[in-house]
Amino acid sequence: MTTLIELGKNAKQAAAILGAAGSAAKNKALAAIAKGLRADCAYIIEQNKKDLENAKMNGMSESMLDRLALNEQRIDSIAAAVEKIISLDDPVGKVSDGTLLPNGLQLTRVSVPLGVIAVIFEARPNVTADAAALCLKSGNAVILRGGKEAIFSNTAIVTSMRKSVESANLPADCIQLVEDTARETATQLMRMNDYVDVLLPRGGAGLIRSVVENASVPVIQTGVGNCHIYVDASADVQMATDIVFNAKCSRVSVCNACESLLVHRDAVQTVLPAIAEKLAEKNVEIYGDETVCSVIVNAKPATQEDWGTEYLDYKISVKTVDSTDEAIAHIAKYSTGHSEAIITNSLADAEKFTRLVDSAAVYVNASTRFTDGGEFGFGAEIGISTQKLHARGPVGLPELTSYKFVIRGNGQVR
Amino acid sequence: MTTLIELGKNAKQAAAILGAAGSAAKNKALAAIAKGLRADCAYIIEQNKKDLENAKMNGMSESMLDRLALNEQRIDSIAAAVEKIISLDDPVGKVSDGTLLPNGLQLTRVSVPLGVIAVIFEARPNVTADAAALCLKSGNAVILRGGKEAIFSNTAIVTSMRKSVESANLPADCIQLVEDTARETATQLMRMNDYVDVLLPRGGAGLIRSVVENASVPVIQTGVGNCHIYVDASADVQMATDIVFNAKCSRVSVCNACESLLVHRDAVQTVLPAIAEKLAEKNVEIYGDETVCSVIVNAKPATQEDWGTEYLDYKISVKTVDSTDEAIAHIAKYSTGHSEAIITNSLADAEKFTRLVDSAAVYVNASTRFTDGGEFGFGAEIGISTQKLHARGPVGLPELTSYKFVIRGNGQVR
Repeated sequence: MTTLIELGKNAKQAAAILGAAGSAAKNKALAAIAKGLRADCAYIIEQNKKDLENAKMNGMSESMLDRLALNEQRIDSIAAAVEKIISLDDPVGKVSDGTLLPNGLQLTRVSVPLGVIAVIFEARPNVTADAAALCLKSGNAVILRGGKEAIFSNTAIVTSMRKSVESANLPADCIQLVEDTARETATQLMRMNDYVDVLLPRGGAGLIRSVVENASVPVIQTGVGNCHIYVDASADVQMATDIVFNAKCSRVSVCNACESLLVHRDAVQTVLPAIAEKLAEKNVEIYGDETVCSVIVNAKPATQEDWGTEYLDYKISVKTVDSTDEAIAHIAKYSTGHSEAIITNSLADAEKFTRLVDSAAVYVNASTRFTDGGEFGFGAEIGISTQKLHARGPVGLPELTSYKFVIRGNGQVR
Repeated sequence: MTTLIELGKNAKQAAAILGAAGSAAKNKALAAIAKGLRADCAYIIEQNKKDLENAKMNGMSESMLDRLALNEQRIDSIAAAVEKIISLDDPVGKVSDGTLLPNGLQLTRVSVPLGVIAVIFEARPNVTADAAALCLKSGNAVILRGGKEAIFSNTAIVTSMRKSVESANLPADCIQLVEDTARETATQLMRMNDYVDVLLPRGGAGLIRSVVENASVPVIQTGVGNCHIYVDASADVQMATDIVFNAKCSRVSVCNACESLLVHRDAVQTVLPAIAEKLAEKNVEIYGDETVCSVIVNAKPATQEDWGTEYLDYKISVKTVDSTDEAIAHIAKYSTGHSEAIITNSLADAEKFTRLVDSAAVYVNASTRFTDGGEFGFGAEIGISTQKLHARGPVGLPELTSYKFVIRGNGQVR
């Protein structure tokens, strides 16, 4: 097994070559990867079966087993996702600024790859190909560290991709997998400042917390979403109902799902019952404050903890507020800075909400579920950043680059 | 003494108000700060004397004492620097992207302040006012943590600034000083993820290393510069001499000074002697490899350590290389990613160097000393970033912002 330091050195070397490669070379490698994944389909499914067997023995839940499982159709969509990245703009080499300085120096700011990106992720094996393809297109070498539940699947996918990259005359080490799934190895990866330029954790709150606590390399924090919808007094009942139902129920396990509902006191009697009735169709459990519990018969009393909880389930916390200001203050206290929405007909409240709520995506009269690179028109995303440094919201190809200044002179001194 | 957690809470509250303030309000506060610093000049000088007396007792060097000392003229230039920031563009509220999505959602990307910025810095008290003014203009609350050597000066400056901010109807807590200069307090500040959005260390390699090792909050790493100049075979002798002399000697204590010289083997006999002769005017000590030592009589043999050393002194390491590729490889190994230059008449080598050297600023035929926010036309800077995440090179006002997505709809669901 290759040591982590060796992986790091290999990645640095590969990154130098990949960083200088043009779009044509990178797209050729992506096409080869897609073709290779389809060709290696039987082998990948065979290896995936081993993961599934182990998972069953370890008592993995049906829904998790389903996320882990690969079949011909799923591998085909993984390959198709890689092919889609071919058509996206190359984010490298873009001149984003340029000036002729008074002393005659020509200053240009040019986008460059970040270098080596480490991605630590949990079970789903489709992340493996997706993250690798996005990193490759943006000129970055990637070190992937998936969960032990998917180690056979990930190894098969990475083996296939490396072979394809090499066949397209780029270094196989552009894509590497950490085969050692011990926790200490992940921690070591988080502190490899000499080899890792950026670390992207993709997973639940526990993983993100561990990375923030332990990493010494720069991190893009992603994915934890305690998303709020605030139903203002002037909200349209039907619109509020549709949006809350969509944001809560269309997919409960994702980070842009609504977890907490704030309702203006004047809308508690008028709008909330309609929302609760609609949520009841999916048996959503409501955890409400006293006022909410007095109006919605099935609601359970919310504890302090509920306001800060990302359920990722058919559950929602509901709180009464007296004003948009109170809603904003509550969000400032409990939000993870992902996505929040206001449902209102008041221009003043809409403007106040969008100006003062400090989250990656702030919506007026729309579902929080739209926070997504694809929906935003970015073509693809590697995650949703909930931090303010570097990238906020969907992290697409441009966010996987840095820049450098190139200054051309003819002997200038200072 | 206010606890660090209290400072953090105060900063968060102040940041919410400051973040929503317009340019007029912020500029009014900056004008008040400048006026206040001039008015409080006598008191600040009196407090600075206490720092100077302590420093003398503790045997501080003359050059460090000079950096610490304040007088009327220096306070006037600190105030003038604050006034200069008034005229700069407000980086907040800029719409950098916008689309009407196919489903009718109006997506806009708007720049917003980072929130709370912590700045840990060493001796010079002028940093105090400078950092505070840049943070204020960009809508960020700042928590300043200076060295204990300047605690009386910093306290006097911050007291003056807070009074002025308040007189301009913004919260005094936009600017706070950590009065406890214990090392543990700095470490605690580095881990206050609930209150600090970004940490900016300004100081030597030791401080930066400690921050990278210990911080759990997002960091913009600044200021360590092991800057290289590569003199190619085709370099003009006079130009090479002037640039190396300027980059090494115009100010030895700064991060954009040249620390290491790479000379093409074909230029060792022709260009290097002229450079060495010029450097001898300032008694620059040369640490060279075998070839260099055989040509330059006063050169001392370089050790492995020299190639990685930021001297910040009248010292330079000099190495012979056989090609531009070797120069690039050496830089990749030893550079801190700050600034590197090639002196050449070859277009192909200039292009290769700018494309393949992975540093914040890459020069052709100019001095590395130009890596500076003022020289780049940014108006001001709070430091030079040597990392790739978020900001690279001079960190000006735009780099002190993040962005958020505002999405306006009329009932869209996904």
